[in-house]
Amino acid sequence: MANGQDHTLQAGELAARLGGELRHCPPDHRISEVRPLEEAGAAALSFLANPRYAPKAHASGAGLILVDPRTELGDRPVLVVENPYWAFAQAIGWLHPEPAQEWSATPVDPSVQLGPGCRIAPGVTIGARSALGPGCVLHPGVHIAEDCVLGADCELFAGVVLYRRTRLGDRVRIHANTVLGSDGYGYVLVDGRHQKVPQVGWVEVGDDAELGACVTVDRGVLGPTRIGAGTKVDNQVQVAHNVTVGEHCLLVSQSGISGSTKLGDYVTLAGKVGVVGHIEIGSRSIVGGNSVVAKSLPEGSFVTGFPARPHREWMEVQAAVNRLPKLMKELRRKKS
Amino acid sequence: MANGQDHTLQAGELAARLGGELRHCPPDHRISEVRPLEEAGAAALSFLANPRYAPKAHASGAGLILVDPRTELGDRPVLVVENPYWAFAQAIGWLHPEPAQEWSATPVDPSVQLGPGCRIAPGVTIGARSALGPGCVLHPGVHIAEDCVLGADCELFAGVVLYRRTRLGDRVRIHANTVLGSDGYGYVLVDGRHQKVPQVGWVEVGDDAELGACVTVDRGVLGPTRIGAGTKVDNQVQVAHNVTVGEHCLLVSQSGISGSTKLGDYVTLAGKVGVVGHIEIGSRSIVGGNSVVAKSLPEGSFVTGFPARPHREWMEVQAAVNRLPKLMKELRRKKS
Amino acid sequence: MANGQDHTLQAGELAARLGGELRHCPPDHRISEVRPLEEAGAAALSFLANPRYAPKAHASGAGLILVDPRTELGDRPVLVVENPYWAFAQAIGWLHPEPAQEWSATPVDPSVQLGPGCRIAPGVTIGARSALGPGCVLHPGVHIAEDCVLGADCELFAGVVLYRRTRLGDRVRIHANTVLGSDGYGYVLVDGRHQKVPQVGWVEVGDDAELGACVTVDRGVLGPTRIGAGTKVDNQVQVAHNVTVGEHCLLVSQSGISGSTKLGDYVTLAGKVGVVGHIEIGSRSIVGGNSVVAKSLPEGSFVTGFPARPHREWMEVQAAVNRLPKLMKELRRKKS
Repeated sequence: MANGQDHTLQAGELAARLGGELRHCPPDHRISEVRPLEEAGAAALSFLANPRYAPKAHASGAGLILVDPRTELGDRPVLVVENPYWAFAQAIGWLHPEPAQEWSATPVDPSVQLGPGCRIAPGVTIGARSALGPGCVLHPGVHIAEDCVLGADCELFAGVVLYRRTRLGDRVRIHANTVLGSDGYGYVLVDGRHQKVPQVGWVEVGDDAELGACVTVDRGVLGPTRIGAGTKVDNQVQVAHNVTVGEHCLLVSQSGISGSTKLGDYVTLAGKVGVVGHIEIGSRSIVGGNSVVAKSLPEGSFVTGFPARPHREWMEVQAAVNRLPKLMKELRRKKS
Repeated sequence: MANGQDHTLQAGELAARLGGELRHCPPDHRISEVRPLEEAGAAALSFLANPRYAPKAHASGAGLILVDPRTELGDRPVLVVENPYWAFAQAIGWLHPEPAQEWSATPVDPSVQLGPGCRIAPGVTIGARSALGPGCVLHPGVHIAEDCVLGADCELFAGVVLYRRTRLGDRVRIHANTVLGSDGYGYVLVDGRHQKVPQVGWVEVGDDAELGACVTVDRGVLGPTRIGAGTKVDNQVQVAHNVTVGEHCLLVSQSGISGSTKLGDYVTLAGKVGVVGHIEIGSRSIVGGNSVVAKSLPEGSFVTGFPARPHREWMEVQAAVNRLPKLMKELRRKKS
Repeated sequence: MANGQDHTLQAGELAARLGGELRHCPPDHRISEVRPLEEAGAAALSFLANPRYAPKAHASGAGLILVDPRTELGDRPVLVVENPYWAFAQAIGWLHPEPAQEWSATPVDPSVQLGPGCRIAPGVTIGARSALGPGCVLHPGVHIAEDCVLGADCELFAGVVLYRRTRLGDRVRIHANTVLGSDGYGYVLVDGRHQKVPQVGWVEVGDDAELGACVTVDRGVLGPTRIGAGTKVDNQVQVAHNVTVGEHCLLVSQSGISGSTKLGDYVTLAGKVGVVGHIEIGSRSIVGGNSVVAKSLPEGSFVTGFPARPHREWMEVQAAVNRLPKLMKELRRKKS
């Protein structure tokens, strides 16, 4: 994590705060970060909310794993709590606290690095420690928070907002009023209230990507949400937290991608497509306009409909549905 | 109305301006506001555009009711006009004129009240008489108009716009470039032109609500559009005028709610859901992704589809539709 | 073109740059603009990418037409290249280069013309040579680029962005964070990369139009994208490049119109409607909510569904689909 603000807690202190029971883990073991099971090392806390992922938990190198009382993980170091997801959300807040936003008296913080040839319009603000490569153009009213990195020759049109730690490659163009890095939509229901899962990740956009106007891309929970190099995103597209969009994709207007979904390279989502979370769409797939993709698709798929199915199948079903009123009349005539 | 700018007209003056006929109402009766039938008192003008609502008109305490020539309301005080809805729109303009926007030379008007610990970034503007509770954080380029009230510890990210008279509870978080209080979409066709129904209400957001990026919530026509306490709204959601969203609801990305609809508490709209106007969705209902709710739903409903129906029913219909091409082939084979 | 920055090239120079072969055109013929076939004169370069449009090419007065090696146009002046669309995209960049954005030290450029009675809030920027009619009101954080023209009494709410050369009629109202004139979504795939088709057109909005919050309207490729007089556009609507929306239309929230489509007058798109590109919707047509219009519609159509069909037909199909599970059970019973 590029945060630089992370804290450390002993396992025993975590157990005490969360009212949980420590097993197979010394209470003085030091935990300094929260990570997904597959990326967690000895200093990381992770969590298992769904028994389906128990094999991942067994294989994980996590220093400590949050589990519920019904879960058995042999001799793995666990912290048993009533609601592992809620415990995980609280632990993010303790281990990865977000510093308060810093604003200097001047709109562009003195610590900002501007490459040669950058052009900054009136009304722009740039937060501490952000760095712009050579030749960047920021139109009026662009707001860049702290610790952002822009490559060479990026152009951000009026009103674009980059939340902290956003990273853009070279030659990225972003149209007016688009937002990168807003909090992902993550809550856990505790005693009748939606408690926030802190969102402390960031957004990464590859070289030569272009994003339209009023696009929203949420930052990841702990790590990045990614838009690949050469990908072109149309107006009013929504990309949720932890999504990975591959390279050279086309996301047409008003499409939306739910959390943690992965798109390969050269994927096309036509207008108004919806994609559910936690699935994968193989490279060179095409999703027809207004369709909803509800399960993973192999490479080179061509699907349409709600829910989306192979395009030819959808055409057949549509044709059949259109003949249905006539068929029903015939059947009724026979009956009588 | 918190407006403070409202005017008063005599019933006879209203009749003259609208070219209408006054019945059962003295011409010097003073009218000072426009209200819906059920909320109207003796000083209020109301209107009946749809004969379906005649019982409401009979029961109303309104000082004067706009009706068309075909409507009979006994001895109720009425003003008979050709187009009651257009007359109503004009009367809003006369009785609730919006003052011109006020801008002081300084971005934050001297009359603004800031609670202790508020942090205001560069490029923020706040209009006359607005009041912020303690600990509010306004990121760069936030624009708050006149007469807004924010509770304690609200955080508004860059580019958020609050129109006049917006009211936020405590701990409300609003992400970048979201707009609260824009005019509702209300027009009346008169002689081939869409004449505007003035929108002079406001937006209210309850404690602990969080709104994503590029969300739009229109202000009510005369009163509030409401987002309840603890409700979480995802990016690019649209909430039309006079909608009431209850407490602890989840409105997922790219959903839209049409005018005057009421959602109970703990309602979930999954991604890209549409809800028509003037209906009620009972508490703890769930609407599946990409569905369109076209009629009221009782508490605890679980619906899907376009139009939305009980989820199990929709699953059955989907399964049947998928088998339809095969069925048609079989029927054709039998025929021949 | 109002650009004033256009360049001129000889046909031979174009052929050399594009690696193409010139036929029936003297190499010193001067080309100064790129135009569609039907609007092209002797000084214009045009292109034919689809053999379907060959008759248009034959009839065109274009000084030079880009064609691929398989196309035969008799004695018309042509430039034969491998990929006419990509050649066209490159030629736009050469013949219609966009000047670098100009920002003066002051937020409102000294060359701006403000009519009497204009009110400009803090945080507004206006680019060189833009002109506002009398009585315009610009709320905080409005950003108007160069060479824009606003009629009388326009009101732009906070955060509205107008790209260069946007033209508004009289009494146009635009709500917060709406964007007019962002680049259209035009790319051509060359050697595995989406190369940009430069977008150098503009947006025109007629008198008395009103646009909601977070609306996006892209500028045309070479000419205008048009919103007709008296048309009312709701929040979060998307209008793509080269679209023409007629007069007095209603475009309800979250609808989207794809490129080059034409709407007549008094057309209504209900909420969340999608319209594909390159079609025409006749005047006084109504498209039901959540529908997708996939082909041209005659005047006075009333359609619904995905894909949209006559509303009555859609109702019949829906009714039949709802009875389908029962029908299938009956047929299975007979079979057994």
